[in-house]
Amino acid sequence: MTGPLKDIVVLDLTHVLAGPYAAMSLGDLGARIIKVERPDGGDDTRAFPPFRDGMSGYFAAINRGKQSIALDLKADADRALFERLLARADVVLENFRPGVMEKLGYGWDTLHARHPRLIYGAVSGFGHTGPEAGKPAYDMVVQARGGVMSVTGEEGRDPVRVGASIGDIAAGMFLAQGVLAALYERERTGLGRKVDVAMLDGQLAILPHAIAMTHVTGHPPGPTGARHPLIAPFDTFHAEDRLFVIAAGNDALFSKLCGVLGLGELATDPKFATNAARATNAALLKRRIETVTLTEPAAHWLSVLDRAGIPCGPIQNLAEAMADPQVVARHMVVDIADAAGNAAAFRGPGQPIKLSGSADSATRPAAPALDGDRDVILRWLDAAR
Amino acid sequence: MTGPLKDIVVLDLTHVLAGPYAAMSLGDLGARIIKVERPDGGDDTRAFPPFRDGMSGYFAAINRGKQSIALDLKADADRALFERLLARADVVLENFRPGVMEKLGYGWDTLHARHPRLIYGAVSGFGHTGPEAGKPAYDMVVQARGGVMSVTGEEGRDPVRVGASIGDIAAGMFLAQGVLAALYERERTGLGRKVDVAMLDGQLAILPHAIAMTHVTGHPPGPTGARHPLIAPFDTFHAEDRLFVIAAGNDALFSKLCGVLGLGELATDPKFATNAARATNAALLKRRIETVTLTEPAAHWLSVLDRAGIPCGPIQNLAEAMADPQVVARHMVVDIADAAGNAAAFRGPGQPIKLSGSADSATRPAAPALDGDRDVILRWLDAAR
Repeated sequence: MTGPLKDIVVLDLTHVLAGPYAAMSLGDLGARIIKVERPDGGDDTRAFPPFRDGMSGYFAAINRGKQSIALDLKADADRALFERLLARADVVLENFRPGVMEKLGYGWDTLHARHPRLIYGAVSGFGHTGPEAGKPAYDMVVQARGGVMSVTGEEGRDPVRVGASIGDIAAGMFLAQGVLAALYERERTGLGRKVDVAMLDGQLAILPHAIAMTHVTGHPPGPTGARHPLIAPFDTFHAEDRLFVIAAGNDALFSKLCGVLGLGELATDPKFATNAARATNAALLKRRIETVTLTEPAAHWLSVLDRAGIPCGPIQNLAEAMADPQVVARHMVVDIADAAGNAAAFRGPGQPIKLSGSADSATRPAAPALDGDRDVILRWLDAAR
Repeated sequence: MTGPLKDIVVLDLTHVLAGPYAAMSLGDLGARIIKVERPDGGDDTRAFPPFRDGMSGYFAAINRGKQSIALDLKADADRALFERLLARADVVLENFRPGVMEKLGYGWDTLHARHPRLIYGAVSGFGHTGPEAGKPAYDMVVQARGGVMSVTGEEGRDPVRVGASIGDIAAGMFLAQGVLAALYERERTGLGRKVDVAMLDGQLAILPHAIAMTHVTGHPPGPTGARHPLIAPFDTFHAEDRLFVIAAGNDALFSKLCGVLGLGELATDPKFATNAARATNAALLKRRIETVTLTEPAAHWLSVLDRAGIPCGPIQNLAEAMADPQVVARHMVVDIADAAGNAAAFRGPGQPIKLSGSADSATRPAAPALDGDRDVILRWLDAAR
């Protein structure tokens, strides 16, 4: 792939999700990603189900198009090779517990002194500073501790986890963002930066609304099911056959919605005349709307509301979302090859950043076998001597 | 603030959440953000509760430190002023429906011809291409249609919305990422790019695991409550007083957990000996663990598990998360000033990207009044003539 980062080399020591996701994002922008894995099994997700012909579909989805070399960073020969790679890299990414890179002799201070242009990106559970720097974390721990779970779930029931691994993925996205900012700056200063991203921090970062509410009102918001806490109607509604979503975010849309549903009297009812009133009476409003929506299938209402310009949508499972014509047209699910040359052995997310003048392929090369690119990488190092 | 983008000027035509969030991210990296608002009321979120002294806490949380100028892009005098701003800007951001900028005479092709270095970032519901380009969308519509809701909620019950507005925020993060990549590239080519981000695309992008599962197994995953679908124990557990989270993601951690809980026999029980077995028997495992955890308060178990190095955590509401010592130490909730000079009138998320050599302030300047920076902006334009 070509792209803005086509001359950039990323040395990626990360495993599991947050770091590999950041590296995938940089790869989708054109960077060459060299995945440095430990020799005994490599990235943990290589062992995560589901498998096809021995390759993890999960690993394939986030490591497509990367190269792999297995290195034992405690063994002298491998350290020498790693140091040759460092000298050629623009970016090094790691998600060890804070302190591990220092013990290996590859902490930021050391690397920055030796390779002033190198950008160092670290992602960890709680970050490299603060009283709990160094503690391990998983996605769910930061979803819980960072407040995301407290606003997700049904009113009056236990909170639930966000089905997307947003603890890892938000952190991976912020890591990619920080690395890109550092790459830009390096063009002007010639110097790299250390980028330190904590999964816990990433959870607070995606909750601006809930933080503002808590501070101004003094009350932390709770879960509100499918309903938006402040806007109505902005919820799921039952049609004859299944649930669907209506998001009529302002008075004009609400009035239009009432017209379409034959509920014109609601638009002038003081209980529903303003968004604030509608939000207060959201449960009653939902029932009134459903007396109509229950009479026809969701497809009928989606078509009628769509024509009227009222934001609405089906609730799609992943099979439906992956086959959605708009998703397909935007190449948001890509075919991923396997080592045997089957071009569509796996599937994963495409590139959500569409750039003018850059091809946006609907296919991706295979994810690497552990240490599968050692020879290619060695030849590349030798050629540059 | 200083930062990697300290010389960058962003002309921000966006409103509500996705676009303003992207602009906030660029601002936190040091860019100057000039928010161009429509004269009649400006950004819709200025009218969103909760308020303090007439200012929306929600608006303040995502627009802190930006400058505001009100311009009617259909009026000649304001267009002339806007064009002077365009000539000085590095980036223009917009989240109109696709086609609106073209009608105003400010489409990408026109702007790129006139200002080849200008980077153009657009965020919309469904993107600028595909059969449904141009349709409106809100956060919940893309959460529903993109598959995130289908994996969020309790098993056997209706899906719920992710409490964080992840439909908007993921799109805003990808927009910032695309703009940063284009800024880097422009240093080398001298040319800007158009960055087209769709909220729907962003939802697929954060679901690599679910997409891989659906493709390899043929079955789309459903919601699994608080439990991770593939890893166990990775769930909420009842203590004597409240729920908390244990995330023992591999055999070594599970074995350690069994030791700490006095449930050593589980570690060798074939029903729980491997992660695959534990995931299959997750409900039974949860009950066995809770027979122990129910006997003491959550604080006890968190302290005991922490000492043993087992990932765990409290489920915190926003008030708790905002006061969390690690969150406070990392400046992940910042005080935001108001126009009257109260330094802590509002609060919002801090910067999750910690950069070596860059100050990471725990305070932010006020969000602007509508058109509040017109004079400053005009003087700046005049000074550069």
